[in-house]
Amino acid sequence: MHTRNRVLIEHVTPIVENGSYYTKRVLHDVFRVEVDLVSDGHDILNGDLKFKAPNTKAWQTTPLKFHENDRWYATFELSKKGVYEYTLEAWVDHLLTWQHNVIKKVENEINVKVELDDFLPSFDKLNKIAKGEDRKFLTEFAEQIKNSKHYKEAVKTACSQDLEEIIRKYPLKEFATSYNQTLEVRVERNRAEYSTWYEFFPRSASKNKKKAGTLKDAAGQLERVAKMGFDVLYLPPIHPIGEEFRKGKNNNPKAKKGEPGSPWAIGSKHGGHKSIHPELGTMKDFEDLLAKADKLGIEIAMDFALQCAPDHPYVKEHPEWFKWRSDGTVQYAENPPKKYQDILPIYFETSDYKSLWNELLSIALFWAEKGIRIFRVDNPHTKPFLFWQWLIAEVHKKYPDFIFLSEAFTKPKVMQALAKAGFTQSYTYYTWRNSKYELTQYLTELTQGPEREYFRPNFWPNTPDINPLILQDGLEHAYLTRLFMAATLSSNYGIYGPVFEHMVHDSIPGKEEYLDSEKYEVHHWDWDKSNKLTEMIKLLNSLRRSNAALQQTFDIHFCQLDNEQLLAYHKRSKDGSNHILCIVNLDPYNKQSGMVQLPYFRMPVRTGEAVIVKDLITDNSYTWENEWNYIELIPTLPFHLFKIHFKS
Amino acid sequence: MHTRNRVLIEHVTPIVENGSYYTKRVLHDVFRVEVDLVSDGHDILNGDLKFKAPNTKAWQTTPLKFHENDRWYATFELSKKGVYEYTLEAWVDHLLTWQHNVIKKVENEINVKVELDDFLPSFDKLNKIAKGEDRKFLTEFAEQIKNSKHYKEAVKTACSQDLEEIIRKYPLKEFATSYNQTLEVRVERNRAEYSTWYEFFPRSASKNKKKAGTLKDAAGQLERVAKMGFDVLYLPPIHPIGEEFRKGKNNNPKAKKGEPGSPWAIGSKHGGHKSIHPELGTMKDFEDLLAKADKLGIEIAMDFALQCAPDHPYVKEHPEWFKWRSDGTVQYAENPPKKYQDILPIYFETSDYKSLWNELLSIALFWAEKGIRIFRVDNPHTKPFLFWQWLIAEVHKKYPDFIFLSEAFTKPKVMQALAKAGFTQSYTYYTWRNSKYELTQYLTELTQGPEREYFRPNFWPNTPDINPLILQDGLEHAYLTRLFMAATLSSNYGIYGPVFEHMVHDSIPGKEEYLDSEKYEVHHWDWDKSNKLTEMIKLLNSLRRSNAALQQTFDIHFCQLDNEQLLAYHKRSKDGSNHILCIVNLDPYNKQSGMVQLPYFRMPVRTGEAVIVKDLITDNSYTWENEWNYIELIPTLPFHLFKIHFKS
Repeated sequence: MHTRNRVLIEHVTPIVENGSYYTKRVLHDVFRVEVDLVSDGHDILNGDLKFKAPNTKAWQTTPLKFHENDRWYATFELSKKGVYEYTLEAWVDHLLTWQHNVIKKVENEINVKVELDDFLPSFDKLNKIAKGEDRKFLTEFAEQIKNSKHYKEAVKTACSQDLEEIIRKYPLKEFATSYNQTLEVRVERNRAEYSTWYEFFPRSASKNKKKAGTLKDAAGQLERVAKMGFDVLYLPPIHPIGEEFRKGKNNNPKAKKGEPGSPWAIGSKHGGHKSIHPELGTMKDFEDLLAKADKLGIEIAMDFALQCAPDHPYVKEHPEWFKWRSDGTVQYAENPPKKYQDILPIYFETSDYKSLWNELLSIALFWAEKGIRIFRVDNPHTKPFLFWQWLIAEVHKKYPDFIFLSEAFTKPKVMQALAKAGFTQSYTYYTWRNSKYELTQYLTELTQGPEREYFRPNFWPNTPDINPLILQDGLEHAYLTRLFMAATLSSNYGIYGPVFEHMVHDSIPGKEEYLDSEKYEVHHWDWDKSNKLTEMIKLLNSLRRSNAALQQTFDIHFCQLDNEQLLAYHKRSKDGSNHILCIVNLDPYNKQSGMVQLPYFRMPVRTGEAVIVKDLITDNSYTWENEWNYIELIPTLPFHLFKIHFKS
Repeated sequence: MHTRNRVLIEHVTPIVENGSYYTKRVLHDVFRVEVDLVSDGHDILNGDLKFKAPNTKAWQTTPLKFHENDRWYATFELSKKGVYEYTLEAWVDHLLTWQHNVIKKVENEINVKVELDDFLPSFDKLNKIAKGEDRKFLTEFAEQIKNSKHYKEAVKTACSQDLEEIIRKYPLKEFATSYNQTLEVRVERNRAEYSTWYEFFPRSASKNKKKAGTLKDAAGQLERVAKMGFDVLYLPPIHPIGEEFRKGKNNNPKAKKGEPGSPWAIGSKHGGHKSIHPELGTMKDFEDLLAKADKLGIEIAMDFALQCAPDHPYVKEHPEWFKWRSDGTVQYAENPPKKYQDILPIYFETSDYKSLWNELLSIALFWAEKGIRIFRVDNPHTKPFLFWQWLIAEVHKKYPDFIFLSEAFTKPKVMQALAKAGFTQSYTYYTWRNSKYELTQYLTELTQGPEREYFRPNFWPNTPDINPLILQDGLEHAYLTRLFMAATLSSNYGIYGPVFEHMVHDSIPGKEEYLDSEKYEVHHWDWDKSNKLTEMIKLLNSLRRSNAALQQTFDIHFCQLDNEQLLAYHKRSKDGSNHILCIVNLDPYNKQSGMVQLPYFRMPVRTGEAVIVKDLITDNSYTWENEWNYIELIPTLPFHLFKIHFKS
């Protein structure tokens, strides 16, 4: 227990759940670590942030700088993908303390002869490690001290910036405290943070109204997806669809003959999670789709849905991976009185859980080998967190670029637990946050709370499972604003189309389920249709590409604006050069106006200095000469997307 | 890495600095632990709080109860002094889940024959651990299940509360997760939380104006201290005072002949930290003082000041415990250009630090053996935190009742670090928090933030080192309000007298130092003087004794009151039976009035129900029939101390 360490290292940030999980960042982010250094007395402290880049063995160090109130920080650039480790070291710096006291005495005209002599033992220590010019400097200083004729020069050297730099360059680190943990930050590719998703059902992609769509038809839609400015195309499961207990139109428990069933009921005599549904095409078709997408700058995201139809090959080959009941039947999914007999949950508590985990991993690796690097994971919250933590880590060992999107619409702490386990992005409650109060609260929680270190939101106005109430009236205003806010509040967003841009809005009465959902039937769309929404999607996706402020989520500030129907937020790019101010009219029926406050404290100009705001939607520019500025928005064009230009 | 554990145990509270330090409570507190239990799926969770009482080996368990939003809690009474350990365990409860599903199906009139049969394997497991009547109950249930004629009875039993109780009584805990830490809570005697301190200089205690006071004279003042209602008497150091570089009147660097010096310059030819200053008396006198204090219900607190006068015996006996300079002189305390030549700091970085620590511990143990159980520790922030953590733990091994008051007026994180290291109570910034805004902010920080788990405030309106600006005008109003708020905001408080109650207020110009401070000279007081302050001290201390709401600090609520000069706060006793409402007029010159809101949400009556408030200062009672109530206070009696009576 006895020790001479005097510095406590506390309250290190970022840290996730006491260090149990890694923090997340993307390539080239500047990583800032903060820490409390607390010590007795009034001596000068010093410390290092130590970090180890992925796949390297040597620790690098960068000195901590004082911030305020015993808080220190240091930064470094994350220049490699993978997992960085970081930790800290801190000590009472006796030489800096000595210099500080010498300077104070000299300022008070007190003789420092004794203090100078006091330095000599430290000089011996420094001399052993200092090099070249520094060593020469120190030797000269020691000579000045020893020769009383050179007292004045010695004092000057003692108080010099040069000496301080040498002291800092060769810290003696006596009785240094090491932080008792090594923390981790995982550095991912940029798409983990900035991605623009489109989802459609390949079987609805046929232009021939008499036929169901195939992967080839889906490939035919890639140009359209690219033109609209999306960079990720997510396809619902493309595996063989179960034939036993197949669901019919509108979730009818019994499919009629010829009905295609739900793609999420995976597995049949045609194969399981490593196979392709014969009605969609062949593995070759799939590989062609990937190749064409790649040429167009689109990445294909697959669905990773770990459940089985009753006729999935696993059920016979590995009956122990399912739960069997006392009457010899297998346990299907149910939420009494509801039954989901077309789907068998996997029994993760099976005694054969090790082979089960390994087989599920092999599915992921199988598709990774085909070139897939994104999974949208179906209902991850119904499988154990520790399974995900393991699976994601295993996939990352071989494919560090792999992105996992968590499709968990459930309790907040469960969604957070999945993100901590390693999911790259997460679906959110955005789908149901409509009012100014709700949106402000929710975005503040996501971007200012502890979640910001590990939970990357992906905003979806709709999904095949959710036709939210706000869209069910089919008002263009709702589609426009929900799209606009998804695309500008969050750097990751997506839509499920063509349902969305065609403003398809009928629902099963009293529910958020689409009427005649594509989940259970084949649709045919007018894929060439163009409307205000398709144009706005194109424009917004293009503005996201040209404005780095929209390529990140966590720098956001909600501006003062005394009208509950008007929402205003200011975003900055990481380098601080791109400033965007978004304003939305949430009222579908009325023009709304108000005064918005420019957040000068976030801008590189003084309060009240004039700025030019250019609306990138209309190309209109305005010079704002005041802190508070009048704005008005009509329901038919219910937003401004201002780029702020600073005159100087 | 493979596992079948499904529950995560996260965000346990209370926890201090990730579990590095213990939480603090006092005897008979009900200890509440909260935790997030997060799991996949929709199964029913279950968990135990496990705890181990001081000096016992067996873990006790108490079941966690669901609170909200995945948060669970459990409580237990801290019935022994010392350190309790606590940890947690949680699991998916398959039997509770089974029962839940059976009930849901039965409610939906679905046959549960298969579910009942599914229970039988679990029955076998339960039967091995259940006892007596429970076993009989289970056997009967199994028979009901097996005999299809008894289906109805089996269903009734399956859905019964009785069965749930048995399931909870014998939890199967399959794949249970254990929390990865064992946390600690230190249970201290009640005085750690509720104490009333008086401080005076024994050498000023003589009634004979021609002589300096002694320990015998101090003993003669004990009745007065007891009558005023104090239960701790803290004496500045009583050890031999250094003679070298002794300080004179008003901190004069050179004492004149016969000047007594500062008691904090400890050690001379007459001895060191284990000796008594010969001018104060003998060890026998000291023991007599302790004995008499004990009879009067007063505890003597000694000063533990780890520093030495230049003639302290340690300096010769253990020169290595001090810092020597290149000119052969010893390092005295200094803050250039200020010199404190009467005090040598101890050199904790000495290579002989182990013997040093042991010797310092022996001082504490020496006085503990004499019967001392409270130290007011002088400037603990100039000695290493890890030294204190060790010393306090060592003293507590033998004297678990020992109380350490930290006299650190320094940066917030340093004060917190000392409290985390084990100090029982801490001096605070109360001395300089005067306005309503300041007081509300500060109390909220102390009582609602993480500090509440380990930092126990002790409020002092003045000390020998601090004559705060607000008291320097000598206004009775300031003395009254500062006393009142110290005594009612904090359950630990103290005053330095008779300076305080005599309203001695002259200071060194421009400083917070008392003019003619007792630190450097002997005073003589009119110990029998009585004034409004002495009467109010007596009354407030007596009201603290009779109102448990004032014997705790952390249950406090600042009431709405739209007047910046009026401060109102509501406090409750731990058992909820005693409700106190304090209102203070902070304006020294004017009557102030306003409307105060009763905090109904903290009271056992419905909003708007009438209550009777009785002012315990004036004995006036009022019936308040509304949520908002008019109050007015004059500067000469600037507070109400209402006890709230509920009619029903």
